[in-house]
Amino acid sequence: MSSLDELRSGKAATMSLEAMETRKRILAEAKHLFRIYGYSKTTVADIAEACRMSPANVYRFFASKAAINNAICEQLLADDEAAFAAIARLPLPAAERLRRFVLEMNNRALRAIHEKKVHEMIKVAIEERWASVQTHIRRTSELLAQIVEDGVARGEFRVQDAKRAAECVHVAISPLRHPVMVAQNIDDPLWPKPAEMVDFVIAALKG
Amino acid sequence: MSSLDELRSGKAATMSLEAMETRKRILAEAKHLFRIYGYSKTTVADIAEACRMSPANVYRFFASKAAINNAICEQLLADDEAAFAAIARLPLPAAERLRRFVLEMNNRALRAIHEKKVHEMIKVAIEERWASVQTHIRRTSELLAQIVEDGVARGEFRVQDAKRAAECVHVAISPLRHPVMVAQNIDDPLWPKPAEMVDFVIAALKG
Repeated sequence: MSSLDELRSGKAATMSLEAMETRKRILAEAKHLFRIYGYSKTTVADIAEACRMSPANVYRFFASKAAINNAICEQLLADDEAAFAAIARLPLPAAERLRRFVLEMNNRALRAIHEKKVHEMIKVAIEERWASVQTHIRRTSELLAQIVEDGVARGEFRVQDAKRAAECVHVAISPLRHPVMVAQNIDDPLWPKPAEMVDFVIAALKG
Repeated sequence: MSSLDELRSGKAATMSLEAMETRKRILAEAKHLFRIYGYSKTTVADIAEACRMSPANVYRFFASKAAINNAICEQLLADDEAAFAAIARLPLPAAERLRRFVLEMNNRALRAIHEKKVHEMIKVAIEERWASVQTHIRRTSELLAQIVEDGVARGEFRVQDAKRAAECVHVAISPLRHPVMVAQNIDDPLWPKPAEMVDFVIAALKG
């Protein structure tokens, strides 16, 4: 019985909860294996074995290893977005929220790079699923725009178009976030500290 | 007779001029072939044929196809640096020089990306010869620092440490220059225009 048949037969509520649990378990085991052995060295058979199920059962939930990787990367991005959204909502001056936001972005990028196997996963996902990365970039821009708009409303920032200014902030700090640029500059002693970049963009917003 | 023997035998002046000419010819033919057929599909034998010489003679000047590619990319970077240096020296306000500098950087990045085969060469070079790219980044930073220091001296910009501020400018505009970031964002309608990014960093420098 396929998930669609279950849905039609009215068993959806129970079965889909069960299916969701199985899906979560597959992702957790896959993440564990990718972290230890790397994305390319882990097979769907390895993941199935770790879940104590048949590869055919794994394929009921995910069409391919790439689909599993994409789901994991979407979880990572969703986790990042939740952290950024929480910072955007803090009852603090906009400049302070912007500072924490950028440092959190950079910390998460650095953490992903230090975990070489995670970095490999993200690079594969960026190449294969650019759309979901684009969505993440858009959502991050929206959160930045909220902070900038709030800063303008409070009289902290003086910019004509808060949304456009937020896009400029996003571009200016993206070298602290983009996996390729962060990895290339991680050892450069002349590269500005994230806190310096924050001061720089805040100066631009204060006008 | 190797170039070193020629050097020792006192024939260096004439021979090395000839050698330089041959070297230039090999690079010109290789560049032409890379542009048409792409880096990976061009062989050293193809380059030798285009130069009407034996592959062995090409190997007297370059140890490998990668060495030829690196020499071409170094030429491209040297050409970029000369253009940037000319802008940095213009008898114009610092803000205007900065504007032209950033637009020139972006134009050159876009041109390289539109020429897909050139983009392939640059990507190979970045991976294989990170040191010469790093040197180029340093030189670009120094030119930006000259403009910012001059802007401070003229009272156009108000920053405490011109060198650090120039590094921040360089990071902020690097998404308009880095081949990976430019290629990923080339079709994004929300991505700020280069001129907007220039206004943004000038606002930060005016403080």
